[in-house]
Amino acid sequence: MRAATIYGERDVRVEEAPEPVISTGRDAVVRVVASCVCGSDLWPYRGVRAIAEPRRMGHEFVGVVDEVGDDVQTVQVGDFVIAPFYVCDGVCVNCRNGFSTSCLAGGAWGAQVRDEGFADGGQGERVRVPYADGTLFVVPGGRPDDALIPGLLTLSDVMCTGHHAAVSGAVRAGSTVAVVGDGAVGLCAIIAAERLGAQRIVAMSRHESRQALARSFGATDIVPERGEEGIAVLKKMFDGIGPDVVLECVGTKESMDQALRSARPGGQVGFVGVPAGGPELPVPVMFGTNVGVRGGVAPVRDYMAELLPEVLDGRIEPGRVFDLTLPLSETAAAYAAMDERRAVKVLLRP
Amino acid sequence: MRAATIYGERDVRVEEAPEPVISTGRDAVVRVVASCVCGSDLWPYRGVRAIAEPRRMGHEFVGVVDEVGDDVQTVQVGDFVIAPFYVCDGVCVNCRNGFSTSCLAGGAWGAQVRDEGFADGGQGERVRVPYADGTLFVVPGGRPDDALIPGLLTLSDVMCTGHHAAVSGAVRAGSTVAVVGDGAVGLCAIIAAERLGAQRIVAMSRHESRQALARSFGATDIVPERGEEGIAVLKKMFDGIGPDVVLECVGTKESMDQALRSARPGGQVGFVGVPAGGPELPVPVMFGTNVGVRGGVAPVRDYMAELLPEVLDGRIEPGRVFDLTLPLSETAAAYAAMDERRAVKVLLRP
Repeated sequence: MRAATIYGERDVRVEEAPEPVISTGRDAVVRVVASCVCGSDLWPYRGVRAIAEPRRMGHEFVGVVDEVGDDVQTVQVGDFVIAPFYVCDGVCVNCRNGFSTSCLAGGAWGAQVRDEGFADGGQGERVRVPYADGTLFVVPGGRPDDALIPGLLTLSDVMCTGHHAAVSGAVRAGSTVAVVGDGAVGLCAIIAAERLGAQRIVAMSRHESRQALARSFGATDIVPERGEEGIAVLKKMFDGIGPDVVLECVGTKESMDQALRSARPGGQVGFVGVPAGGPELPVPVMFGTNVGVRGGVAPVRDYMAELLPEVLDGRIEPGRVFDLTLPLSETAAAYAAMDERRAVKVLLRP
Repeated sequence: MRAATIYGERDVRVEEAPEPVISTGRDAVVRVVASCVCGSDLWPYRGVRAIAEPRRMGHEFVGVVDEVGDDVQTVQVGDFVIAPFYVCDGVCVNCRNGFSTSCLAGGAWGAQVRDEGFADGGQGERVRVPYADGTLFVVPGGRPDDALIPGLLTLSDVMCTGHHAAVSGAVRAGSTVAVVGDGAVGLCAIIAAERLGAQRIVAMSRHESRQALARSFGATDIVPERGEEGIAVLKKMFDGIGPDVVLECVGTKESMDQALRSARPGGQVGFVGVPAGGPELPVPVMFGTNVGVRGGVAPVRDYMAELLPEVLDGRIEPGRVFDLTLPLSETAAAYAAMDERRAVKVLLRP
């Protein structure tokens, strides 16, 4: 089969890879219907994170189950499934607590998963899935209409991650919310805040096309200013004190600082931006303002059941964050389009 | 009247001070029935925080209203009142949001409160109280039985601050909780966690008398270990992953680090320890574990109505944190007893 491998900075190649094979009894093989490129894939691509050796890429995919191991109970051949961006067993104490990203037995795509063997990357034709029962989420009713594929694919990561930002920020009916970051996750965080009942949602964005998408997802206001200026605008908009909740969907020192200092006293920052450069939070500022900070790597597997029905019936349309579709063979072009910000998010079809 | 003033390191004197006078119409004068020394008072006392000029001390007191200004509506002469450890107007947007510690018009005891004039320190015979309606909490039914005075005095700060830790840590029925810090606030946090329904409460304490008090307040387990050892013990006690909630009631870099790394994935740190040395929180650790951090300077005025009935009927006994009572004239001895850890908390009677 063909699959994408990164060899070095700006060097992603689609080439032949070994066919996935069932081995533990707990695993499955999935034929990929759609996958995509993540903002975090750009880190090794840009050389920000060093590449010690070639690595298979991709951690978001949907597909159809080709084979299952003898011990798999909830997943059947022919099922249409959504994979979360990580592998989890679904039974450990952290999985039971709703934090499957901290699964005691889990791991990552494109890597060895402890004693369970290799999990292929999602940017390929087929994927061997360890812990199929815990990892894969079965979409009831079989393969859905093709128009729904992009939306379902966002449940692999960005839509559920935006939702995690909103949940971590304690967004509730009537909340005032600002969203820092207008990438796919930030845009999905707007959808999440809207469906949780936020009364006002400010998108912090300078890009016209993303502003338009933000508005169509439920943003009531757009603020292009950043840093101190952005903070000042937000304070002014909300009684001089700032919004109840700020959703941080970038991950830099600057964006986290802006988020922390924008929220009103007693407010909350929900953060899902992958930390770049190891930002630190000043406890004295948090102490003085009582602004809480909560978030992290999103346990997307735990949110799929809640969000799926709304994707299926079109109440939410997170699939619109995909603004470019390419065949798997053009994966390198997909990375380049996102790297050069010509696309918000690129969908790949094997 | 007599009142305590700090002049320098380990130099607290009780001396004559001007009689408080009504001046704005919004103020009141309270005759102090009981006040006390706070752990944070030890900072200037120990020279950790420099003393630029002599300053009146004390920010926790209960008393009887002697005089009220013409515009005061909810407080009457003869009322028995509890003062929070800060001045607040009760009507600004932050007060309405339940974060009166961020009152836009408020201030501190022993200092000028913006245009409202001087607020006396609580360690004295009488106190001029700006914004009497917003600041003072009236205990219904007049002056209570003398045995209740210590418990009511804890609502000025430590009991409500312990409660704030528990609320910020999202303690709920069934929670597993560890409390870092066995000072008056940490001990009150145990009471707070117990009344919110925690199923298991671990007191991190090395002092036998405090361990006994912790147990009588609801602690189910005692862990004397600290740092890495303390973390390891907590992990082992709770499924290898740690408790749901850690309440940080110290404020040092070490205690905050211990709290953050003790909580289970997806857990929460509720913190009220006044930050010493400006600790910072590593966002990558929080991102990886989804442990949230929330807390700060406790809006105690907002909690008094909830906690008062349980103090009055003896369901909770936070007044037991006072293990020494001295006359106001011996305030210097009170500071020394707390500084030398001969007392958990000292009550002062004018």
